[in-house]
Amino acid sequence: MLEEMKDLDLLSTCCAEDKFHDECGVFGIFLNESEDDCEAARTTFYGLYALQHRGQESAGIAVSNGHEIQLHKGMGLITEVIKPDHIKKLKGRLSIGHVRYSTTGMSNVVNTQPLVFHYLNGMLALAHNGNLVNTVELRKRLAAYGSVFQTTSDTEVVANLLARYSQDNKIEDALARCIMDAKGAFALLIMTEDRLVGVRDPMGIRPLCLGELNGNYILASESAALDTVGATLIRDVNPGEIVVIDQDGLHSRQVIDSPRRAHCIFEYIYFARPDSTIDQVNVYQARREMGRQLARECNIDADMVISVPDSGTSSALGYAEEAGLPFEEGLMKNRYVGRTFI
Amino acid sequence: MLEEMKDLDLLSTCCAEDKFHDECGVFGIFLNESEDDCEAARTTFYGLYALQHRGQESAGIAVSNGHEIQLHKGMGLITEVIKPDHIKKLKGRLSIGHVRYSTTGMSNVVNTQPLVFHYLNGMLALAHNGNLVNTVELRKRLAAYGSVFQTTSDTEVVANLLARYSQDNKIEDALARCIMDAKGAFALLIMTEDRLVGVRDPMGIRPLCLGELNGNYILASESAALDTVGATLIRDVNPGEIVVIDQDGLHSRQVIDSPRRAHCIFEYIYFARPDSTIDQVNVYQARREMGRQLARECNIDADMVISVPDSGTSSALGYAEEAGLPFEEGLMKNRYVGRTFI
Amino acid sequence: MLEEMKDLDLLSTCCAEDKFHDECGVFGIFLNESEDDCEAARTTFYGLYALQHRGQESAGIAVSNGHEIQLHKGMGLITEVIKPDHIKKLKGRLSIGHVRYSTTGMSNVVNTQPLVFHYLNGMLALAHNGNLVNTVELRKRLAAYGSVFQTTSDTEVVANLLARYSQDNKIEDALARCIMDAKGAFALLIMTEDRLVGVRDPMGIRPLCLGELNGNYILASESAALDTVGATLIRDVNPGEIVVIDQDGLHSRQVIDSPRRAHCIFEYIYFARPDSTIDQVNVYQARREMGRQLARECNIDADMVISVPDSGTSSALGYAEEAGLPFEEGLMKNRYVGRTFI
Amino acid sequence: MLEEMKDLDLLSTCCAEDKFHDECGVFGIFLNESEDDCEAARTTFYGLYALQHRGQESAGIAVSNGHEIQLHKGMGLITEVIKPDHIKKLKGRLSIGHVRYSTTGMSNVVNTQPLVFHYLNGMLALAHNGNLVNTVELRKRLAAYGSVFQTTSDTEVVANLLARYSQDNKIEDALARCIMDAKGAFALLIMTEDRLVGVRDPMGIRPLCLGELNGNYILASESAALDTVGATLIRDVNPGEIVVIDQDGLHSRQVIDSPRRAHCIFEYIYFARPDSTIDQVNVYQARREMGRQLARECNIDADMVISVPDSGTSSALGYAEEAGLPFEEGLMKNRYVGRTFI
Repeated sequence: MLEEMKDLDLLSTCCAEDKFHDECGVFGIFLNESEDDCEAARTTFYGLYALQHRGQESAGIAVSNGHEIQLHKGMGLITEVIKPDHIKKLKGRLSIGHVRYSTTGMSNVVNTQPLVFHYLNGMLALAHNGNLVNTVELRKRLAAYGSVFQTTSDTEVVANLLARYSQDNKIEDALARCIMDAKGAFALLIMTEDRLVGVRDPMGIRPLCLGELNGNYILASESAALDTVGATLIRDVNPGEIVVIDQDGLHSRQVIDSPRRAHCIFEYIYFARPDSTIDQVNVYQARREMGRQLARECNIDADMVISVPDSGTSSALGYAEEAGLPFEEGLMKNRYVGRTFI
Repeated sequence: MLEEMKDLDLLSTCCAEDKFHDECGVFGIFLNESEDDCEAARTTFYGLYALQHRGQESAGIAVSNGHEIQLHKGMGLITEVIKPDHIKKLKGRLSIGHVRYSTTGMSNVVNTQPLVFHYLNGMLALAHNGNLVNTVELRKRLAAYGSVFQTTSDTEVVANLLARYSQDNKIEDALARCIMDAKGAFALLIMTEDRLVGVRDPMGIRPLCLGELNGNYILASESAALDTVGATLIRDVNPGEIVVIDQDGLHSRQVIDSPRRAHCIFEYIYFARPDSTIDQVNVYQARREMGRQLARECNIDADMVISVPDSGTSSALGYAEEAGLPFEEGLMKNRYVGRTFI
Repeated sequence: MLEEMKDLDLLSTCCAEDKFHDECGVFGIFLNESEDDCEAARTTFYGLYALQHRGQESAGIAVSNGHEIQLHKGMGLITEVIKPDHIKKLKGRLSIGHVRYSTTGMSNVVNTQPLVFHYLNGMLALAHNGNLVNTVELRKRLAAYGSVFQTTSDTEVVANLLARYSQDNKIEDALARCIMDAKGAFALLIMTEDRLVGVRDPMGIRPLCLGELNGNYILASESAALDTVGATLIRDVNPGEIVVIDQDGLHSRQVIDSPRRAHCIFEYIYFARPDSTIDQVNVYQARREMGRQLARECNIDADMVISVPDSGTSSALGYAEEAGLPFEEGLMKNRYVGRTFI
Repeated sequence: MLEEMKDLDLLSTCCAEDKFHDECGVFGIFLNESEDDCEAARTTFYGLYALQHRGQESAGIAVSNGHEIQLHKGMGLITEVIKPDHIKKLKGRLSIGHVRYSTTGMSNVVNTQPLVFHYLNGMLALAHNGNLVNTVELRKRLAAYGSVFQTTSDTEVVANLLARYSQDNKIEDALARCIMDAKGAFALLIMTEDRLVGVRDPMGIRPLCLGELNGNYILASESAALDTVGATLIRDVNPGEIVVIDQDGLHSRQVIDSPRRAHCIFEYIYFARPDSTIDQVNVYQARREMGRQLARECNIDADMVISVPDSGTSSALGYAEEAGLPFEEGLMKNRYVGRTFI
């Protein structure tokens, strides 16, 4: 298992910095046709429900009916923010959604996502997981051309870049230029009136995968969200790849071909769901193998193995198995205390 | 382990009926002295937090300052209902609290607990876990004497009985008469202005234990709540026993001495916390032993053991251990879906 | 105008005491038949909307479908508490409602009205405007028989009295005994499963009038509520009279025939709506006449008459008219500050 | 009275169109010094309270502490949106606020004001009463340069114009260019970190006045807001004038000198408070004189004059006085129904 991980340059420094920024989950779907106007929004709701562990602070869903983008978002869990009555009003065959956890103090409603913008060529909705390291520089550059900013989020910076680059261009061309400028970690979903676009940063720090449900494409932070809605995992979006989904199907463009991979190790350690497979490595098996490897490297004289639940349990089971020790549940977690982060 | 349980008459029929009624958690504390006026309420808050798995529908805390009882309660989790500002106002050295899960449709604010009553001799607060089987008959009997009822809860019936029996009597004498009349399962806390009273039904269907924290007595549904607040388990309240805690200490009276024990088996199977010890049997060890016993009785040809989380995990670990099979986590539980009941 | 009032013994002492208690508005309707299940609740909603000036603190509506009484109430204005979705669920041909202003500190949800009780003969809903002066004595008397109290309201005392007196009796017989015991000001509506009862205290301190809408009877605190729902004023309920409305129509019983009348003068001065007629005296005309009389008694040398809005305007217009002075609006009231009381 | 109005070109056509847009109230204050950090926000709160009749849909206050702008806003009345705890956090000597009524369907939280922007030279807060007629054209022009828009409000357009024009310029120079581009009605407050700016459209359609409180300047939609906070009216801001208030005092610049005046007649008829004086005409006296003039032009045979409250009462009093008829209150307004607009 760890063999599969050995060619990864695990960018812990990036993640350490990333700790001061956002953790998020994104989900998007493009239905070729649907008899139920709210199917896209409803599927996004369930996809976000499966990604709730990636962010409990705010949630939102945007849909496009081909002409116009509508949005509902707010502070709280997805089940608190999006009620059945909201889904009834979110009509359209395209949808993207977002759940957000902010590790900084700026957890307020103005920074909830998706963000929706009017620009020269129409409307844009953005849902972003990750953070840029050159935001300050990009904001300065944009402000010098007259841009104004209403939030402190990187997403608004990306939207302004997109608007500036898309004057005569298709959104994917503008996006290609954007990701040359933007440095950092990003798994980004963009929805226009009639297309769904996904992009992943050149080193693949944040996860993003592609799935299929009855002939329709889905983009999601983790494969567990695909399982939840009954979809099949096709593959991960490649680092530096833009995928565009429209009425004609899927188009891919490899914009940057970085020789370096830097998947975030914390996804495997505790952030992602164990039942997700990220970059072809199953998270549960990775944790279990890390436990086995720990037993090989640090075998100590002990009576039993006890885990710190929940994310430590798989590793502890691996350690117990390799060390030939009994596994016991010795620490109880109060299920009514929210998710804790290091 | 099961040896320890063998003398228990596991009353599954009672629990099956009980399924149509309330599951709840109760907690009470009597501080002999305190420099912090809100310490009793705060300790009750943390005790209820540890008992949240026993009821997520409503929560409430009542305190007495020796002269008057104050109450705050509402629909929702304890952390949603009781905020730091509420605790600041709940001043007094005596406190009882309640978390409630109702399996019937009557989940509304009028049935939240504790219930507080004015009666001939002052004020009473009641917090009840369990259900009576002769409520209809008792209500009729009381109504014939002019009683009125504002809720559908058994607790209001008990309060009316108490008021009627306490004309010239101390509350514990009135309570002794009450538990002759009341048939069913109950672990009941009663607070007057200056004393804390606990009682457990004659067969011990619902759990109730006694703890000690810095020389002060605590009553709680489960020992895990004692651990959470730093208290020590003294013993279980005996079936049919009334314990009275006042300024002079603890007084016990064995009112009914039923030869039959009928602890609810579902407490051990899935309802209680694994880290609680109920009637001298640790829940986690009971589950693990049930798994081992199952392996002995039903050993099947299998590659691995997979549990239905969370309450099934301890049993599955026991089964795997006894059967010599590997244990694997094969089902993931979405942590953001609330507790489910059969 | 004041001539019409001259035989009234205006009981300002009572009202001064009353100031420390509740001001409220009540409304009730009995529909003989209705194709719309929610018509009774909806009419009560509009009636209470017209009586909102009598209490802005809490509001509630109870309905009976002939078998069972349902209730919705809460803190706030009627439009905040009762939403269209609530009215849809309040099905039944009988309905009573209440708006409440509490001049004491006990403005909390437990004291909102109507109060609904189960008693020996079924269910009771009560909505009360006024206050008793012998509550403490009545509570003691009832508690000695085993009654318990969950609120501090007079209404719960009346309910307990009713329950005690109604053992073998019809509700109106029990009520007749009650109003012998209860001393003070009350305009009280009682709804059982199948009848609507109204009673007014023997001196007529609080107003209560009887109206008719398409052959159905209505009871309301003020005639302005009748106008709002399109009903016609039949007459005031007499002091000391019980009116019972059931499937057979209206029945009246004069229980007490007090020689003394003591209508509350503050209803005319500022509490009631100017477009109401109370005890055959129109409030607007009473105010205007009071202004004219003041001009006759205290004519001063002035340039203009300026009123303190809103309740002083009618009197000021009367003064100006009688004194031959111009009336000017010199004080502006911010419409977004809630009603103020002396 | 009407003589004073005769040189006004009453632009009813503009106002008719304006009907489809926003009615709002604005208030701003610059404290030279203050021992109380929250005095600016508190004064703005009371100023907006006095202007609540100009908009009941949303409210907000922004403050600057010299370095940074903070904002609190939301849907609802000022007393619902801004609580004492919010004011405690709004520290700074500069403050602007806004109450909004939207006559179109776009009444949602994203369009609440003030709007706060980061731009090249720092931060900007804007509060706007009025509407532009060339918004679509301006948005297109800005989008062609890469601007994106998150709201449908004119205010965001103005902010983008300002940002574009302020590259090397002071805010007031950028603003001077803005108001050349912007066509329509506007009374606009702008707050930077260290200055408060007010501007009124060239024809003076929307009101804006300048006041003084203990040596500090205030800008407000109506003089009634000055009275409420204890300030004195200095003068109206002139049509086409920019006033800048900073640490050095007040600076004025007459940017456009339109020969045409077009004060909105509906301010005098029913929109403004009677106790405000707008462009040197007192609203109450204007209404009273309009009533007198109506009596002169249309004298009919009548018994009495009855007004449609509230805004019609002053006119009716004027009519009654001129026609020698008695004035009576014949229509009652339910004080608990919100403000109605034509």
